[in-house]
Amino acid sequence: MADGPITELVELLARLPGIGERTATRLAFHILGLEPDYARALGRTLADLHERVKRCELCGNFGVSQRCAICLDARREPHQLCVVARVQDLIAIERSGRFRGRYHVLHALLAPLEGVGPDRLPLAALIERIGREGIEEVIVATPLSVDGEATSMYLAQALRATGVRTTRIASGVPHGGDLEFTDQVTLGRAFEGRREL
Amino acid sequence: MADGPITELVELLARLPGIGERTATRLAFHILGLEPDYARALGRTLADLHERVKRCELCGNFGVSQRCAICLDARREPHQLCVVARVQDLIAIERSGRFRGRYHVLHALLAPLEGVGPDRLPLAALIERIGREGIEEVIVATPLSVDGEATSMYLAQALRATGVRTTRIASGVPHGGDLEFTDQVTLGRAFEGRREL
Repeated sequence: MADGPITELVELLARLPGIGERTATRLAFHILGLEPDYARALGRTLADLHERVKRCELCGNFGVSQRCAICLDARREPHQLCVVARVQDLIAIERSGRFRGRYHVLHALLAPLEGVGPDRLPLAALIERIGREGIEEVIVATPLSVDGEATSMYLAQALRATGVRTTRIASGVPHGGDLEFTDQVTLGRAFEGRREL
Repeated sequence: MADGPITELVELLARLPGIGERTATRLAFHILGLEPDYARALGRTLADLHERVKRCELCGNFGVSQRCAICLDARREPHQLCVVARVQDLIAIERSGRFRGRYHVLHALLAPLEGVGPDRLPLAALIERIGREGIEEVIVATPLSVDGEATSMYLAQALRATGVRTTRIASGVPHGGDLEFTDQVTLGRAFEGRREL
């Protein structure tokens, strides 16, 4: 094996999810075959990444300054708050274009089995924000997984005292989904959550 | 979308082969969620990559100094030379452990349709090396593709004057290969290249 920097690069790339040693090797040689400008640009972006990316002090979204673009956007509906576990989920919701309020990113989910309890959820900040901003509805959009559901139920209970309306995104058969290949839990939820036609 | 550095990183990652925007986004957030040390290490390795990786002046392999580890290794069989198109191919051959000679990396293949002619092959250096090192056999291990075969045939012809023995790696049904799913050309070659039992 060509020693030094290539091995180093392969080892680092192979630590990423979904990238095995074979793919890492292919990527490393591909990068080596490109103009050096590409490797330099990617290298600089990575080296400065954690310094340049800031967490919004209001909602926890990532951005380039103290407040994120969504919190600074005066056209957003100011009384709806969507609670998500991760910034990736926020991005997915933004892509759907169906929510015009603002967000609250937990950066955590309850996971009692792994020792992640309620103290890791930014609950005080959320309650304080609901009061300060006059929030009327909190839409809980944590994942429909065990941890996401537990977090959702915990939040509903914890927010009861604030009197805010707390809703949960619907669970059911996904768009284009085939009933034959839909799991039992999802089908059960689709029946439970049925609506009038 | 979280602006600035994350978008920048996603765009750069998405230029790599086999990495679409979705995977790039997933990787970017994964990196952001790791300790900053990882991003910094990967960043530095990438930024310095082209400066630190040298081409061996004898064989064209990558290394960290003027001569690569294989050319410097006195235990290699000195009279066999394996010609490969790319350093990746050299690494694959080294992994097999079945060749103990040295290499000559072309860093190119004939591709007449794309305007890559014989002038792009380092032929003069190869012929000079065959004479200087007293090479007795040149094993052509360019790919079994159209371009690899064209390059192989061109080399055989060009090296005829040197009197060196020029051989080609075998083509046939791969190890574990099912005849039912082997293409016609490969099967044809397997018959042509049959050997006595």
